[in-house]
Amino acid sequence: MNQSITYLSQKEAYESDQDLMSQRVGYSIDILMELAGQSVAHCFHHINKKYHSQKLKNILVICGPGNNGGDGMVAARHIAHLDKAYKLTILVLKAPVKDFFINQLTICKQYSIPIKELPNEIDVSAINALQKTELLFKSYDIIIDALFGFSFQPPVKPPSDIVLQALKNVDVPICSVDIPSGWDVEKGNIHNSFDPSYLISLTLPKEGSRNFKGKHFVGGRFVPYEFSEKYKWVMPEYKENETFVELE
Amino acid sequence: MNQSITYLSQKEAYESDQDLMSQRVGYSIDILMELAGQSVAHCFHHINKKYHSQKLKNILVICGPGNNGGDGMVAARHIAHLDKAYKLTILVLKAPVKDFFINQLTICKQYSIPIKELPNEIDVSAINALQKTELLFKSYDIIIDALFGFSFQPPVKPPSDIVLQALKNVDVPICSVDIPSGWDVEKGNIHNSFDPSYLISLTLPKEGSRNFKGKHFVGGRFVPYEFSEKYKWVMPEYKENETFVELE
Repeated sequence: MNQSITYLSQKEAYESDQDLMSQRVGYSIDILMELAGQSVAHCFHHINKKYHSQKLKNILVICGPGNNGGDGMVAARHIAHLDKAYKLTILVLKAPVKDFFINQLTICKQYSIPIKELPNEIDVSAINALQKTELLFKSYDIIIDALFGFSFQPPVKPPSDIVLQALKNVDVPICSVDIPSGWDVEKGNIHNSFDPSYLISLTLPKEGSRNFKGKHFVGGRFVPYEFSEKYKWVMPEYKENETFVELE
Repeated sequence: MNQSITYLSQKEAYESDQDLMSQRVGYSIDILMELAGQSVAHCFHHINKKYHSQKLKNILVICGPGNNGGDGMVAARHIAHLDKAYKLTILVLKAPVKDFFINQLTICKQYSIPIKELPNEIDVSAINALQKTELLFKSYDIIIDALFGFSFQPPVKPPSDIVLQALKNVDVPICSVDIPSGWDVEKGNIHNSFDPSYLISLTLPKEGSRNFKGKHFVGGRFVPYEFSEKYKWVMPEYKENETFVELE
């Protein structure tokens, strides 16, 4: 049944996101990001129990400069709240300037989550920047990729290019949020990016993830019935109070 | 173990709420209300399964003019999302003027939740206003009381006085949010208000609910570890990704 759910083009994802936050529907970015990030956290915990016997404790969340990064920040603090055994670290590619993201990082600090900034961790102009980034990534049990979301357009600029290359080179499990970073949102992995083990699509999967070979989940349970009917979307069927579903 | 959790005075509840939304901690009202209302919805669904074999389908959510009413609005749409069999109605005592509450009601309409306004439903100046309000309330399987929260101070003004009296007179199960409306936040039911069957305290229970005789739950799982340590709060222990806990 899940296989028949709707997949979104980049334009559809963008326009419906704007519509959800319009006066017509009434959501704020805070609400949508909270529910999206929470579903990522719940799904991550499920993945860790089901596929890793809860052994993944040391978690790096890579947060990009846009809303995908915000989802990652929300997910990080919800994961921290699920089990004190989880040790989270957030990596931001540059210090956020918008109040909204600054506030999200402030809450994360209240959960004792250290915030690393890539240019401070690794001299990205150095010749061994890639090796150093790989070394950093290898020190974690799993990496949550919240670098780029459904707005992604190439080309990838520094230091994101190094991050993507390091993610491709290291052997650490990766869980991507919404779309694997570096993938074309509609055409999939045409730029030779990494293949994550897990993908948690938000609202609905994007066309580019149709041929994703890993474990695929959908989270972000906030689409009102009248909204999905208007767009003629076939939504995933959430069970009870679950915030995510696994696709078959 | 749960019996030893912290109970808050009215002042502690107010000041810690302000602190959660300060620049120091970083939460917005949208985030806190979303998580609070979601926990009420999950808890309501649990109550309905555990104590009523899911027979409570026709639900009235009474929303007051403050943040407790906002929690009720969020809870209503999350309940609507949990099961299409739930038929929600929101009753507001007056039309909200703040954008924040207007937006919350707008989202509820996207879930096909009708919004009733008390003065339009019942002529509160009429001599039989109480009977008409009771009749309205009796047409539902359960009432979620999100009228007054931890900021409550007597006296109760019209038309809230009629609502409280009708809630006392009718035989419909009531589930209160944060504190039973009309109860003193610290001294309990000293004003001869109604006794709800269920109480879902948010963040932590208030002193006034220490002698509550019904089924008591705590929701609002958003207190960071460093925050509860600062206040020396003993928090309830949430299981897995549950958003609420039942107190023993």
